[in-house]
Amino acid sequence: MSASSVRHYCGLFGIFGHPNAAFLAHLGLYAQQHRGQESAGIVTSDGVRLRRHAEMGLVNDVFKPGVLDKINAPSAIGHVRYSTSGASCAGNAQPLLFEFAGGQVSLGHNGTLTNAAALRAEFEARGHIFQTTSDSEIIIHLLAAPEHVEHERPLASVLERIEGAFSLVMLHNDRLVAVRDPMGFRPLCIGRMDNGAIVVASETCALDQIEAQYMRDVAPGEILTVDAAGMRSERFGPVDPPRGGACIFEHVYFADPSSNIFGENVHTARKAMGKALAREAFVDADLVIPIPNCARCAAIGYAKQSGIPLGRGFTTSHYAGRSFILPDQDQRDLAVRMKLNVIKDAVRGRRLVVVEDSVVRGTTTRGKISALWKAGAKEIHLRVASPPLRHPCYYGIDFPDPRKLVARDRTVEQIREYLGVDSLHYLSAEAMLECVKLPPNTYCTACFTGDYPTEVLVPLEKLALDPEAKED
Amino acid sequence: MSASSVRHYCGLFGIFGHPNAAFLAHLGLYAQQHRGQESAGIVTSDGVRLRRHAEMGLVNDVFKPGVLDKINAPSAIGHVRYSTSGASCAGNAQPLLFEFAGGQVSLGHNGTLTNAAALRAEFEARGHIFQTTSDSEIIIHLLAAPEHVEHERPLASVLERIEGAFSLVMLHNDRLVAVRDPMGFRPLCIGRMDNGAIVVASETCALDQIEAQYMRDVAPGEILTVDAAGMRSERFGPVDPPRGGACIFEHVYFADPSSNIFGENVHTARKAMGKALAREAFVDADLVIPIPNCARCAAIGYAKQSGIPLGRGFTTSHYAGRSFILPDQDQRDLAVRMKLNVIKDAVRGRRLVVVEDSVVRGTTTRGKISALWKAGAKEIHLRVASPPLRHPCYYGIDFPDPRKLVARDRTVEQIREYLGVDSLHYLSAEAMLECVKLPPNTYCTACFTGDYPTEVLVPLEKLALDPEAKED
Amino acid sequence: MSASSVRHYCGLFGIFGHPNAAFLAHLGLYAQQHRGQESAGIVTSDGVRLRRHAEMGLVNDVFKPGVLDKINAPSAIGHVRYSTSGASCAGNAQPLLFEFAGGQVSLGHNGTLTNAAALRAEFEARGHIFQTTSDSEIIIHLLAAPEHVEHERPLASVLERIEGAFSLVMLHNDRLVAVRDPMGFRPLCIGRMDNGAIVVASETCALDQIEAQYMRDVAPGEILTVDAAGMRSERFGPVDPPRGGACIFEHVYFADPSSNIFGENVHTARKAMGKALAREAFVDADLVIPIPNCARCAAIGYAKQSGIPLGRGFTTSHYAGRSFILPDQDQRDLAVRMKLNVIKDAVRGRRLVVVEDSVVRGTTTRGKISALWKAGAKEIHLRVASPPLRHPCYYGIDFPDPRKLVARDRTVEQIREYLGVDSLHYLSAEAMLECVKLPPNTYCTACFTGDYPTEVLVPLEKLALDPEAKED
Amino acid sequence: MSASSVRHYCGLFGIFGHPNAAFLAHLGLYAQQHRGQESAGIVTSDGVRLRRHAEMGLVNDVFKPGVLDKINAPSAIGHVRYSTSGASCAGNAQPLLFEFAGGQVSLGHNGTLTNAAALRAEFEARGHIFQTTSDSEIIIHLLAAPEHVEHERPLASVLERIEGAFSLVMLHNDRLVAVRDPMGFRPLCIGRMDNGAIVVASETCALDQIEAQYMRDVAPGEILTVDAAGMRSERFGPVDPPRGGACIFEHVYFADPSSNIFGENVHTARKAMGKALAREAFVDADLVIPIPNCARCAAIGYAKQSGIPLGRGFTTSHYAGRSFILPDQDQRDLAVRMKLNVIKDAVRGRRLVVVEDSVVRGTTTRGKISALWKAGAKEIHLRVASPPLRHPCYYGIDFPDPRKLVARDRTVEQIREYLGVDSLHYLSAEAMLECVKLPPNTYCTACFTGDYPTEVLVPLEKLALDPEAKED
Repeated sequence: MSASSVRHYCGLFGIFGHPNAAFLAHLGLYAQQHRGQESAGIVTSDGVRLRRHAEMGLVNDVFKPGVLDKINAPSAIGHVRYSTSGASCAGNAQPLLFEFAGGQVSLGHNGTLTNAAALRAEFEARGHIFQTTSDSEIIIHLLAAPEHVEHERPLASVLERIEGAFSLVMLHNDRLVAVRDPMGFRPLCIGRMDNGAIVVASETCALDQIEAQYMRDVAPGEILTVDAAGMRSERFGPVDPPRGGACIFEHVYFADPSSNIFGENVHTARKAMGKALAREAFVDADLVIPIPNCARCAAIGYAKQSGIPLGRGFTTSHYAGRSFILPDQDQRDLAVRMKLNVIKDAVRGRRLVVVEDSVVRGTTTRGKISALWKAGAKEIHLRVASPPLRHPCYYGIDFPDPRKLVARDRTVEQIREYLGVDSLHYLSAEAMLECVKLPPNTYCTACFTGDYPTEVLVPLEKLALDPEAKED
Repeated sequence: MSASSVRHYCGLFGIFGHPNAAFLAHLGLYAQQHRGQESAGIVTSDGVRLRRHAEMGLVNDVFKPGVLDKINAPSAIGHVRYSTSGASCAGNAQPLLFEFAGGQVSLGHNGTLTNAAALRAEFEARGHIFQTTSDSEIIIHLLAAPEHVEHERPLASVLERIEGAFSLVMLHNDRLVAVRDPMGFRPLCIGRMDNGAIVVASETCALDQIEAQYMRDVAPGEILTVDAAGMRSERFGPVDPPRGGACIFEHVYFADPSSNIFGENVHTARKAMGKALAREAFVDADLVIPIPNCARCAAIGYAKQSGIPLGRGFTTSHYAGRSFILPDQDQRDLAVRMKLNVIKDAVRGRRLVVVEDSVVRGTTTRGKISALWKAGAKEIHLRVASPPLRHPCYYGIDFPDPRKLVARDRTVEQIREYLGVDSLHYLSAEAMLECVKLPPNTYCTACFTGDYPTEVLVPLEKLALDPEAKED
Repeated sequence: MSASSVRHYCGLFGIFGHPNAAFLAHLGLYAQQHRGQESAGIVTSDGVRLRRHAEMGLVNDVFKPGVLDKINAPSAIGHVRYSTSGASCAGNAQPLLFEFAGGQVSLGHNGTLTNAAALRAEFEARGHIFQTTSDSEIIIHLLAAPEHVEHERPLASVLERIEGAFSLVMLHNDRLVAVRDPMGFRPLCIGRMDNGAIVVASETCALDQIEAQYMRDVAPGEILTVDAAGMRSERFGPVDPPRGGACIFEHVYFADPSSNIFGENVHTARKAMGKALAREAFVDADLVIPIPNCARCAAIGYAKQSGIPLGRGFTTSHYAGRSFILPDQDQRDLAVRMKLNVIKDAVRGRRLVVVEDSVVRGTTTRGKISALWKAGAKEIHLRVASPPLRHPCYYGIDFPDPRKLVARDRTVEQIREYLGVDSLHYLSAEAMLECVKLPPNTYCTACFTGDYPTEVLVPLEKLALDPEAKED
Repeated sequence: MSASSVRHYCGLFGIFGHPNAAFLAHLGLYAQQHRGQESAGIVTSDGVRLRRHAEMGLVNDVFKPGVLDKINAPSAIGHVRYSTSGASCAGNAQPLLFEFAGGQVSLGHNGTLTNAAALRAEFEARGHIFQTTSDSEIIIHLLAAPEHVEHERPLASVLERIEGAFSLVMLHNDRLVAVRDPMGFRPLCIGRMDNGAIVVASETCALDQIEAQYMRDVAPGEILTVDAAGMRSERFGPVDPPRGGACIFEHVYFADPSSNIFGENVHTARKAMGKALAREAFVDADLVIPIPNCARCAAIGYAKQSGIPLGRGFTTSHYAGRSFILPDQDQRDLAVRMKLNVIKDAVRGRRLVVVEDSVVRGTTTRGKISALWKAGAKEIHLRVASPPLRHPCYYGIDFPDPRKLVARDRTVEQIREYLGVDSLHYLSAEAMLECVKLPPNTYCTACFTGDYPTEVLVPLEKLALDPEAKED
């Protein structure tokens, strides 16, 4: 597998100037655990040396009692990652930590570089060796290259060589750096603690967790540097980019409803999508039921707009944790069933509007629909608060092989048949974009529309691979 | 600490006649994990010998890969337990396993025996030794006593000597036994698998988990025996008990909304309580917000009855797992904050009806209310879908020291002040009882009303102890 | 499996009156780890309550950092156990802890009770229930029986009902008790710390480990009680027993060479056996090689007496720990090979006298001999510093099924052929007994001679069972 | 800390062409566990991709059941490491694994490069980034450099740029490479399995473990390549180096006695040193006692030459494993005491010759001597089978800060006083060199004599650092 095939969700955190920086990084990552459950890592600096602890696993498992004490220091960056690719291994856990002519540097990256493979080939030809299969590592190679070390604006000149989606947190012995790519694909915000410590995080829910005050977002094309002298900003990239790339899927599914991203609240945006859905596709029914837990915001909007009462069709286990094995039974079915119990009495004999945020493969949704039918539902109308998902993401969200997307080669009617519902409606892309505040061309909607904001060289293996991917 | 001070929630499971009995017991316990997160155990029988695996921890941690393979056999019982007392230790994990003149026997118990201390003293005087501090062990001592071994109806005669709340699953080498006390304090239901295997469980959600069909509840005062010859029933205790003891708190808080207990669905009962609450204490507001996740059913009812839209005020972490430590910070506050993020945009400037299922100490509710105020709520009206909780439970639910109950020595107005809300209303006991199907005197409402269905000798230590208890 | 089929080696420790009693118990058990590697446990008393930690595993694995802090108290008893039977499980780990009319009591037992099965049947008939499959538990049942509780000399009257081998340490909330059976099968010694704390242990090497001064052995038929008032002794059993049962196999193989047991040093006794062996069966050779590590003492004696230089034929791994699996290969062979490397250059072309302490099954010895031949030995003369092992032990050492003993049905010449050596000699029982200080009838030599010092009812299952047993 | 301050012992293993390569690598590392207990790792190749598993810990803990199954493939290299420096961390565990223009490559290194710091600075200036603090990583950077990639003899040209001690095993997807530096500091041997698989290992004991036949040593200055076409050799470095660097300390202390290194058996060499010691410094005494376990070979030689009987003064624990903590006590003392029990009866009243292989700091030896005095020794004459250790090693053995060496600034008489013995003699360097087969200038004796076989630029931090180091 080449580096470019590793795509993932990620959550970032950084803090400069707090005696408990490692502990706060832990909390900040924990609040963003939904952005990545595969590995977690923290790198700290005591002003002289960087220390790292990163492992495969959930935040609270990676940072067991005692671990943080050993690395605590006044500044820290952290990273959580979710990767569906086969390259899941401790070696790829971020933040990465390297040593070069400029000293030690650590990097956490959210997004995907679209020219990583080309740059990697170039640097391998120059004799560089690579430790990880991650596309992120090339950023450090660029940074260490003599032409950049001696550049007037070293980091800016590095960042102008890379393409794609990149929100970054970087830690040097004496400073914290936060970066967002010029198109602003991934969110990254800035906060301040009562003691003056500066915090950066992918989502504002991490600021809330540690009671930091939100200041502003890192702007697209901004390099924010925090050191003993305070904060300062620098610009890189095109002065007036014709359009932006803010990931609409963050609003649709990925970010926490309590977070503000791209200048507005996720819950509010999601609720508006639910309302728009009810306007586009009202159906008379007894009950609106969200697929837990992601679709609850959209369901609230749908219920409000339609006047149909909001109900509860499922209870969810809070104790999922480690999965396990029943001999001679289909694992995927079991995993679905273990996480959800249908409230039969709420469903039996009712006409249901089931609200989903999005549908990827369709297998899980189909399982839930089937469970509702078994429980005695009279009618099931599926309403999806986003358009059909038909295209791969090259900017950091790891959908499965496009051929596995249920909407890839099916009409809506065919999907309806496949899922086994009485009616099905997807929110239109136009309506979706009306539910968020920024101008439409600020957003990337490529996974829904195929309209990629950058030129993309589709890596061949992307099309051929079939990783076990995000369940819908 | 004497045996009688150990009180707890518990979940039971039993299965007879399935090649994967241990695996199904695992699933059945997992589905009932909300009934006990402290220890989990399974005992199996291959027809000759019983084997046991039980440890402190969550179901999926106790039954790691490979463990079930070692003990799998055609019949099994299982137990999850939540104990807040200091006697939490592996030795007390159930099912208990003993050997006596009648061979091996294993026991899982949900409830509390009110005459356990007296019986234990009697048997210690007879020379018996006790392994655990659990009140459950006395049942096996009774069973082993020569007067019962030689009794015509040995188990019935044992059960007629014990008082209090007891749903039991017992496993002998050749049979499974399920018992409910004559007042029916705790739920226990019977189901059947496709292959004919008989299953018993505290809640029907465990039957759903393994796709067993619900048959009926074990009746109060019934001994159900399942062996190679099939099922048979036996009665014990008073023929026509003047009243019942079905725990109303199971409906209010404890059972899973998808389960049916005491003949009706929990979600339906809870929603009815929310409606009744709106009838008793309507207040004009912008949004109904449930405290996640327990109060969501009642909030649905409140919203429907009041016509005020149902909203979402919090997001919840699904990755709690292991807790951890931030130096120099209040742990309890942190634990609360880590589990909930307020959706500020949903709350800011709004008049809120916050729906809770019940309030125990009040500290957690107070913390959540405070978070809503910080997020900019304009008004907060707290509605609790059950009466003030003022009395200890002697039948198996481990509330904290009564003096710690927020309602113990406070008027509703004083509680309102303490919690810091604009208005506060608790559902009346009468209305609560109208929301469930069986006649009022079928239920035990003692924790709310002080009306205990049995004579209770209050153990002194109960009044003096201050265990770290269930958070409200 | 009935209780009487559980036989094992064990190590005991007890301490009364030291602020770090749990930590010293840990050290004392660690020093006696050779007496049992299967489980380890410590029970402490703070004067009011007893607390227990016991698990399967090595001492240093069971008592991980933090565990001892939680149970430390001024008095403690500890136990290590090696059981080869199938009943290895956490429930059987000692010390056992029970509660009865007399309060809490904890017990650690080294030895085997020959009338345990009969007593257990008697008590089961009285209605008692048993938690473990261990024969030790009956002692507590006896202690709790009303006839003993009210007896003038309760413990003595209990001890007079049990038969067989038993060195005991017992802990009550306010006192430590140490007992040795009237025939003195197993060792048990008394020491004193600088602060006055009294210590008991199976072997003096535990006293050395914690820098306690050896005082004397617990005498056969003595009950030693240590409490706040000091030490006092009591006698039980026959006044002048006709003979003793001091286990000669402790000297031959089991005890640590640095320990003194039964009044003399183990190394000295073992060296004397080696000398006697050289007197009985000198053979001209180039090198005396011990089988590491147990036979090194005897080899020193053989070399000294014979004048043949002592050499080294094997190196041993110090990192055995966890075992592991090579696919498609014989596990037993591998386990043997992994623990020993032959020093080929020391062996090649040499005439060797290989000294063994004892031979049980013969398979391991045979493997070692085979490795020496492969390495180029010219002659191999095996000398065993004890007689042929032909009879089961009913007093606490768990040899395998007698039919698996290499000497059971073979003449010495047949054994020589089986092991593949040029000559073979076993030390005679008479010579062995001349190498120790006490009169011959003080010792039990039953495993070698079949001369059992007590009447033994051979449990049928002993003859039928084939447990995986001590490797020779 | 700079890269050059990481020095360590190490053990290497490599195998090409066996279906169970990963399992055999595990065995081969296990047999060499004495060469490094800090980390263990294996990298395998299935012909296309390399997979790696490496962690801190002992071989059998790192390779738990199931781990090897996941990475098994037909070729493998492995590495065990002991590092006393602060840079102990998972990131430094070997074999290292990188990707560069030539594909994937993995490296295991035993030794220390004396020009690593200079090379690292050169490559950092060229823009290279470093993942580890290990000096070994520079080898891969050299290999990846365009000037070497395109070189006619790429690896040879790389190896000619590095200086110091290096035995290497390298794995590419299609081949195994083994290298020894031109002076042959560290051992490396070649063997063959019955199926034709080629094996390389630091010591022959690893070949014995897996029943491979020893073929020959990798020659100083040899590059051995094994691939599907078989074995082939290549030379690099000076044609006729004026002298060699075979580490005499491998014979004195480090290698396993059963191994052959540098053309002869370690036990034989060590025994010869013991004999020479007796010739140089005979003293009349009752008993020769080795410090276990390393000095046993030398003690055998001393006893044979002197005619004084060889005895046993200590017993050793086989269960050391995890260390632990006694509050309020000196940890170092405790650690020493826990590993050794003195056999008092063997020592009391005797005149002892205590044989040690070497003395580093002197603290541990002093503790053992003190224990012998406490046990009642009459005289103690210490004989050390190597010269005073006074100089740092720059070739891969991590002695402590030279100022901590007991012999650094003391005369032998002063050391005698410090250790508290009646007499003390160190084997002379001349005699030591007579005990091994190769010509004296083949060996490096720098740690004893200060005569370094290469020009050494002493890194300043080496003189300043005070790592917790190898105990003597």
